[in-house]
Amino acid sequence: MSTEVTMEKIVSLAKNRGFVFPGSQIYGGLSNTWDYGPLGVLFKNNVKKAWWKKMVQESKYNVGLDAAILMNPKTWVASGHVGGFTDPLIDCKNCHARHRADKLIEAYVHDNGLDPIIVDGWPNEKMEEYIAEHQVPCPVCGKSDYTKIRQFNLMFKTFQGVTEDSSSELYLRPETAQGIFVNFKNVQRTTRKKLPFGIAQIGKAFRNEITPGNFTFRTREFEQMEIEFFCKPGEDEKWFRYWKDYCHQFLLNLGIRDENLRLRDHSKEELSHYSSMTTDIEYLFPFGWGELWGIADRTNFDLSKHDEYSEEDMSYSEGEGADRETFIPYCIEPSVGADRVALAFLVDAYDEEHLTDAKGKEDVRTVLHFHPALAPYKAAVLPLSKKLAEQAEPVYEELAKHFSVTYDETGSIGKRYRRQDEIGTPYCICVDFDTAEDGCVTIRDRDTMEQVRLPIAEVRGYIEEKLVF
Amino acid sequence: MSTEVTMEKIVSLAKNRGFVFPGSQIYGGLSNTWDYGPLGVLFKNNVKKAWWKKMVQESKYNVGLDAAILMNPKTWVASGHVGGFTDPLIDCKNCHARHRADKLIEAYVHDNGLDPIIVDGWPNEKMEEYIAEHQVPCPVCGKSDYTKIRQFNLMFKTFQGVTEDSSSELYLRPETAQGIFVNFKNVQRTTRKKLPFGIAQIGKAFRNEITPGNFTFRTREFEQMEIEFFCKPGEDEKWFRYWKDYCHQFLLNLGIRDENLRLRDHSKEELSHYSSMTTDIEYLFPFGWGELWGIADRTNFDLSKHDEYSEEDMSYSEGEGADRETFIPYCIEPSVGADRVALAFLVDAYDEEHLTDAKGKEDVRTVLHFHPALAPYKAAVLPLSKKLAEQAEPVYEELAKHFSVTYDETGSIGKRYRRQDEIGTPYCICVDFDTAEDGCVTIRDRDTMEQVRLPIAEVRGYIEEKLVF
Repeated sequence: MSTEVTMEKIVSLAKNRGFVFPGSQIYGGLSNTWDYGPLGVLFKNNVKKAWWKKMVQESKYNVGLDAAILMNPKTWVASGHVGGFTDPLIDCKNCHARHRADKLIEAYVHDNGLDPIIVDGWPNEKMEEYIAEHQVPCPVCGKSDYTKIRQFNLMFKTFQGVTEDSSSELYLRPETAQGIFVNFKNVQRTTRKKLPFGIAQIGKAFRNEITPGNFTFRTREFEQMEIEFFCKPGEDEKWFRYWKDYCHQFLLNLGIRDENLRLRDHSKEELSHYSSMTTDIEYLFPFGWGELWGIADRTNFDLSKHDEYSEEDMSYSEGEGADRETFIPYCIEPSVGADRVALAFLVDAYDEEHLTDAKGKEDVRTVLHFHPALAPYKAAVLPLSKKLAEQAEPVYEELAKHFSVTYDETGSIGKRYRRQDEIGTPYCICVDFDTAEDGCVTIRDRDTMEQVRLPIAEVRGYIEEKLVF
Repeated sequence: MSTEVTMEKIVSLAKNRGFVFPGSQIYGGLSNTWDYGPLGVLFKNNVKKAWWKKMVQESKYNVGLDAAILMNPKTWVASGHVGGFTDPLIDCKNCHARHRADKLIEAYVHDNGLDPIIVDGWPNEKMEEYIAEHQVPCPVCGKSDYTKIRQFNLMFKTFQGVTEDSSSELYLRPETAQGIFVNFKNVQRTTRKKLPFGIAQIGKAFRNEITPGNFTFRTREFEQMEIEFFCKPGEDEKWFRYWKDYCHQFLLNLGIRDENLRLRDHSKEELSHYSSMTTDIEYLFPFGWGELWGIADRTNFDLSKHDEYSEEDMSYSEGEGADRETFIPYCIEPSVGADRVALAFLVDAYDEEHLTDAKGKEDVRTVLHFHPALAPYKAAVLPLSKKLAEQAEPVYEELAKHFSVTYDETGSIGKRYRRQDEIGTPYCICVDFDTAEDGCVTIRDRDTMEQVRLPIAEVRGYIEEKLVF
């Protein structure tokens, strides 16, 4: 029997076991920033590695890129971010609380049990009308008397050089995607790739969100894993479906339960200005459905804009003689947040098992059922007694050359198993008093709690086999 | 016989083969920002992976961390960065060119063949006196008539939330180190580590340098790999020597030639305010000696400051009863720039070999002698003819599950070997017309150009063995 997973439990485990700490905690934190602790950094790195393995290393189509966070500001004019990357803000005239108008409406709809609506993409006037018509109350004071909506740009601004005038104004990139688009020709030229091909990138992006929240789900500083997949116009729908399936399968292969996933197509109103179709892969978090992965057909919007603004030719040619065609490629973008997909893997792995031991005593086992490829430690080496360090340490040292392992010699073996269960270590390797004689160790499986005895020389291969996905 | 390595050659190879492109190039770039291309991202990731393997995965002492770039600004007051992280700027009164006073003096000394001096750490008055006394000329107009020196803070500023007033002012972190110090207690508590232990982190940092330059050596946005290693006061000198040797050995193990390295101790004047001793591991770049790795004894400076400013107890206790001691740990910091150490590996690997073929024809072979662990691709699968795709593709697909490989079927086999030499691929796997029959392929070694014939099933093991370091 399993218990309900709540965000409180997840956040508490994350803090207490070293997955995620509040950022700058000793100074009272900084509005929803988070630091990945010793286990969190291993776990999140494994998520990124898994993505890179499937999207770049094993892919016939894709190559990687790592563009700078600071870009020439003309990039953001061309992409439309300077003009239109905004949140609709509205102030309560009575208590002066500031809200996002779209979220205000969505919360009102939810709280009153009305049919869900997606406000994203509504013009200001439509939101203002809805708020007035329904007398949507201010969540702080309860009155319904608001200012007009103002659009607030979400890009973080900074200044380069010794002055703070507008000539030195820069933005922290709000998405990694544009670093890919501006390098389209560089990558195509140096790799000699032919269409279709993709460029994949992992990196930080920054959005000055008014209301960050839900732990690591929505933060101002976050890490994206994006692919811009370029293809011939007309083949975009085919590739859109291909990447939707491929990304969905990626999540399933790494153990996310399909019942906690849904694919939601954007309505026409909700679609971004650059997109002809978009599907979000959403996950059922304890706080509700949340977007993990957006797969968008960005058409040739971005390359066309950069062609226009930079006056650099962004077209691509193929075919010979009379068949030669020149065009600006279309682009499919599968974009996933590393932090939020890691959070989904964490939530999905969390379980509390109610056990009854041989004597009828009841107990709760907290366990993270991570796929072994994602687990922070692949194995824990546990000498049954501190006296066995001479046998146990070489086992640890040999395995540590190949993957992350931990070593624990404190407390009873049962207590140590539970500690490893709680951080998702799939295999516990117990070195006991027979080890010196038979050269074997006992390997205990996290999920089944079953044990097998194996020669030390076979342990590495036994574990590495389980890491495959 | 080898030819001289110049920065021009390195930059040109980097651009043309997809290691490093100028950032935002289609918009005319952005003052010394750089984007890592398809090969560059693989290469730099390998450098980071190698560091992580030796510093975290295989280390008995160290655990990892990944703290946010945006921190509570009180952090930078405590660390001294708000008050003192500055460059001394001076303007030429004649032509209004702006210079760093310390660099002005160093360039003057160098250009006039005087004994090198290290100006870092001089007070403003001393620099002003030197400039006046030696009539150091302005490099732009040649006059020597300057303003007073003003200290310019190097932290990038940004604003969070909807206003740009000082209450919402934040900094982009100028070093990853403080993210570690503020988490000292969180990490110690959750890992139950005892002294000595270290916390290791890889991440971006930002410094508003007045004169970035030398390709990826000095950039405003850069990536650090830092360890803060905590120990008992009095044991710091021992651990300082330990980490100095360990870091030096790391570079040698990955193939950097010792003749291109030197260890330089900081003079008393040059030492940072927080440090009792510092040694820089420097590399001989084509533009001269440059710092790769700073190993500093930061004493208990940082933890003491955070203890004072945050009012959180940063002390550590050990021992029982009458032997119990409570103190603020000392800290050794080995800090290396991922971009500049990658640049050093690239420069050190670069070679142009002048060959004479059997017919006496002279030729130049450009080759990157990367350690296989650092090479972007570990192997290239090369079918002798396009007709052999059926045999060659499965070889590629199987290897791609385990490490990065590439596939090339265009051009003569000799030309393809040279292409791989130039990007440092250590092994070329040639699939030929006998492969279907004997199940073997020919593996050609990048450095010796010698070939061995091996069964396909043994190729993976053959290559993986060479990746060990």
